[in-house]
Amino acid sequence: MVGQIETQNQPQDSVALPETHGELVIIGGAEDREGECRILREFVRRAGGLQSHIVVMTVATGLPGEVGEQYIGIFKRLGAEDVRVVDTARREDASDPKAIDNITQATGVFFTGGNQARITECLKDTELETTLHKRFSEGAVIGGTSAGAAMMPDMMIVVGEGATNPRREVAEMDRGMGFLPNVVIDQHFAQRGRLGRLLSALAQQPASLGFGIDENTAIVVSGKIVEVIGEGAVTIVDESTVTHNNIESLLPDEDLALCGATLHVLPTGYKFDLEKRSPIF
Amino acid sequence: MVGQIETQNQPQDSVALPETHGELVIIGGAEDREGECRILREFVRRAGGLQSHIVVMTVATGLPGEVGEQYIGIFKRLGAEDVRVVDTARREDASDPKAIDNITQATGVFFTGGNQARITECLKDTELETTLHKRFSEGAVIGGTSAGAAMMPDMMIVVGEGATNPRREVAEMDRGMGFLPNVVIDQHFAQRGRLGRLLSALAQQPASLGFGIDENTAIVVSGKIVEVIGEGAVTIVDESTVTHNNIESLLPDEDLALCGATLHVLPTGYKFDLEKRSPIF
Repeated sequence: MVGQIETQNQPQDSVALPETHGELVIIGGAEDREGECRILREFVRRAGGLQSHIVVMTVATGLPGEVGEQYIGIFKRLGAEDVRVVDTARREDASDPKAIDNITQATGVFFTGGNQARITECLKDTELETTLHKRFSEGAVIGGTSAGAAMMPDMMIVVGEGATNPRREVAEMDRGMGFLPNVVIDQHFAQRGRLGRLLSALAQQPASLGFGIDENTAIVVSGKIVEVIGEGAVTIVDESTVTHNNIESLLPDEDLALCGATLHVLPTGYKFDLEKRSPIF
Repeated sequence: MVGQIETQNQPQDSVALPETHGELVIIGGAEDREGECRILREFVRRAGGLQSHIVVMTVATGLPGEVGEQYIGIFKRLGAEDVRVVDTARREDASDPKAIDNITQATGVFFTGGNQARITECLKDTELETTLHKRFSEGAVIGGTSAGAAMMPDMMIVVGEGATNPRREVAEMDRGMGFLPNVVIDQHFAQRGRLGRLLSALAQQPASLGFGIDENTAIVVSGKIVEVIGEGAVTIVDESTVTHNNIESLLPDEDLALCGATLHVLPTGYKFDLEKRSPIF
């Protein structure tokens, strides 16, 4: 089985990872597309650089033509050999042989921003999803910004309020695309004040490691190692150290309590070990 | 010496507190002033209830007449026996015998919102400040909202950007009024996305315990015990557990890294022990 998760012999609470796979470039939205393009440049480099074949997935956006053209221009400017858009606006598009073939040829697949629910509505449990996981396990790089970042875990934040304290209702969760299982990801993190939203998401599902990624900031995931690149920081909340929470006793709209979580804030260049749940410095 | 801090025989890194003093009601701004007024009601109750003599300090606001009248109306409606405004718009007002006398008679002193720099500019090292600390040590309750909350520690956030990752430049610090030493307080916390600002403040001075207080939320400090009341939550960051930060090597505008801080999020009813640095549940 492609993309199958090995859970045997993993230390408890660690992030179980497939044994072999490509890399992930998970961007907190609003990445630089006009200047140095540090993050998108890194995506192209890891996807094969001058030999890279990149597919831009526009399924999340309501403006696939415009957004697709923009990323084609950027990735070509950054040196990619081949860049093409796959737009799966309807679920049936996700079994189109041409789309499948494009993914099969890709060394890098990039998901644009938009609405993350559209990504899973159109792709979940389709042939295209299977092909994506196959290519990922073979070494292709999967990138995504904003909605394209949110969809990376097995459980994603579909929608939710920022700038509020945590409550169960703040974050609506649903299945994600499962490229980085057992974590929660939130994007536009500092810019939209999403600490409460990330904690709300963590509280209502088994993962206990949350990544809040700022705008124009990304994590590059290579096996068990996460590296931060870009302008802002990545805020990591580790709930495995929590000594008390009140999630089991909460009635609707009551406030979440959380005691003893571990907090890391990592800027560019810092790394984090997913298995040890520990920053590397 | 009134308000002197006993630092002998305190466990290292604990919050040193005066041996005797009144209570503090520290509000994250935008407290309910029209409905149940849960927080302001608690302030009046702790200041003596029907026997309370309350002074409203309008020094922080540019609209002292209007804001003063509003709080007079609220505190009278909530049952206070006597409510009067002391406005120290100029520094010389802080040695006015009438102002000093009003503070001396007060069982509760409430600082309105506005600009916290105005509070310390007009009151720091004046007779009125000495009188405030004397009354506090005798049991008077000191309350404050927004700017009136920011000024409570010995070092306060004067001004600073929200919705950003931590950098040294994000929070400009200066001396506060010193009612709650050895902590940092930030207000409008979730609403203005101020996690980065709180961490920026903590990083640049010795205190290692930060309280981020949401709007319409307060902490009531009685000796070493902090209790949360109100609508939102209080986010507590404890830096005493930090295993690594890069503050010593930062050049201007570089991003702060922080590994291994402890995070608590406490809603209404939860308590925190300042000496043990631990939530009580």
